[in-house]
Amino acid sequence: MKVLVTGGSGFLGQRLIHALCRRGELRRGLQQQTISQIRALDVVRAPSGLSDPRVQYLEGDLTDRAVLAAALDSGVDSVFHLAAVVSGAAEADYDLGMRVNLDGTRALLDACRRLSVPPIFVFASSVAVFGGDLPGVVEDNTTPAPQSSYGVQKLIGELLVCDCTRRRFIDGRAVRLPTIVVRPGKPNAAASSFASGIIREPLAGVEAICPVAADTRLWIMSPASAVSNLIHAHETSTAAWGYQRAVSLPGLAVSVREMLDALRRVGGETAVQRVCFQTDERIAQIVRGWPARFNAARALSLGFTGDGDIETIVRAYAEEHAG
Amino acid sequence: MKVLVTGGSGFLGQRLIHALCRRGELRRGLQQQTISQIRALDVVRAPSGLSDPRVQYLEGDLTDRAVLAAALDSGVDSVFHLAAVVSGAAEADYDLGMRVNLDGTRALLDACRRLSVPPIFVFASSVAVFGGDLPGVVEDNTTPAPQSSYGVQKLIGELLVCDCTRRRFIDGRAVRLPTIVVRPGKPNAAASSFASGIIREPLAGVEAICPVAADTRLWIMSPASAVSNLIHAHETSTAAWGYQRAVSLPGLAVSVREMLDALRRVGGETAVQRVCFQTDERIAQIVRGWPARFNAARALSLGFTGDGDIETIVRAYAEEHAG
Repeated sequence: MKVLVTGGSGFLGQRLIHALCRRGELRRGLQQQTISQIRALDVVRAPSGLSDPRVQYLEGDLTDRAVLAAALDSGVDSVFHLAAVVSGAAEADYDLGMRVNLDGTRALLDACRRLSVPPIFVFASSVAVFGGDLPGVVEDNTTPAPQSSYGVQKLIGELLVCDCTRRRFIDGRAVRLPTIVVRPGKPNAAASSFASGIIREPLAGVEAICPVAADTRLWIMSPASAVSNLIHAHETSTAAWGYQRAVSLPGLAVSVREMLDALRRVGGETAVQRVCFQTDERIAQIVRGWPARFNAARALSLGFTGDGDIETIVRAYAEEHAG
Repeated sequence: MKVLVTGGSGFLGQRLIHALCRRGELRRGLQQQTISQIRALDVVRAPSGLSDPRVQYLEGDLTDRAVLAAALDSGVDSVFHLAAVVSGAAEADYDLGMRVNLDGTRALLDACRRLSVPPIFVFASSVAVFGGDLPGVVEDNTTPAPQSSYGVQKLIGELLVCDCTRRRFIDGRAVRLPTIVVRPGKPNAAASSFASGIIREPLAGVEAICPVAADTRLWIMSPASAVSNLIHAHETSTAAWGYQRAVSLPGLAVSVREMLDALRRVGGETAVQRVCFQTDERIAQIVRGWPARFNAARALSLGFTGDGDIETIVRAYAEEHAG
């Protein structure tokens, strides 16, 4: 089977491609199928992308018809659509967010619709679809009311995935990812960037600024869980989903204080001392608007899994990036 | 002030333009402003459009940049966006529905964003945004889960209106219209077409087919109420709306049987005898999927109004079209 991963050079895209190569196969309905090719589409080539004979890198923009035609040339069986302009960038540049997050998703769905067999289509959505006047615990039937252009664009993506599934253009599944912690690498334009920074930087001996108060609560997921849930979204049966093709994944509710406690247990007091609280009201306000606690009953009944505790997440990151 | 009405040649568009001409002014925030011009944009010119020196007809497609530029030339203060491909047609032709209902709305919002003062933007949405596994009574916080491409496109329109309002590109208000009864003229491609047909045709001495059972319940609104609510949406204060810019209007819950009882009281037994029940399972199934009862608390608190009873609606239609 042929698999297309958009955003294939990104952090999650690369981890997903690694995981797919390791597994070598994917369940599609009742069948285990061998992965013959993984097409990694992205605007930039991964700086140190996995080299595997099955992985083919394609550079280009989702909204470029020629690029899409090449990506879907001779058919694909499964699509993992991860490519997106992140929250902060989509807020700063409305046209860019609309072009990539909305037009890009739409162009990809349109191209999939022209395939002879409807592909399984896994869409990386976000808890940013929720916002506004939220209940203490977000339920599966809480109405999304995004308060960022990124959240609106992700929600529109979910709606298009649902409608294209209903019309049998694709077999779509959208998973709403919590904030991913710990992201490696450099800070990015996401308002959630600090959530990884306050673990990653201190462990590397670097100072980090925490722009929100210690009692701020976040809904998080480890990169490993995110990847295994993206794969699980592909492997669940179409019947189990029904018509509602979007689900909030089971994250972990943690406070910044609990994150720093975990950092202390893994990296010692010296590490924690490298975190400096310096409130940034703009970021603090955005983060306060995010839902911090979910009842992920539907995701759990569909077989999605969350992380056990924050210390395990921090320790896994420390071990992976130790040398 | 200058007002743009898209779908200006349509049935609701024409009634709205008549009403605006009669009033001669519109409240915008705290000010009553005199209407100096109404631009009626539509793909076709109204066959017997109102002739008034203030009304200017523009023919063209919303997705045509030149047409939009002409429609917004030298600025507009208010937009009533009614233009749409109806439910049945958007289901039959996916590309057409996406082009007009999604791309058209987006192009119009983009054009409005370039105006020097953000216009008040009233968007005619639909209860078709609701579907799937619905509660007995749809509440203001029930999550929309449209089961038609038309419903998806209207919901995406609402989301774009909300986001463009949050970003202060426009001052948007979206009203979810119930099924409009009684529509004059000919049956159309909407699955709800029969709801007007079983009143309109018998009163004109013509036979009508009812494709659903007599106990089928509908959520309806008269054309007069729809127009006054569209105008009210414009005149409500922006503060009253808050961030949630879409609202389900207060319709009237009636069964087909109650509609025919009203027809009997207005047009006599002869009229009712002209209605023949002939189940069309395709239409019956679509209509069963529609929500038939709402708690319109938020709309009522915003000052929107519904119809008192079905007999008054039927009588008003009969008197208006008596000859």
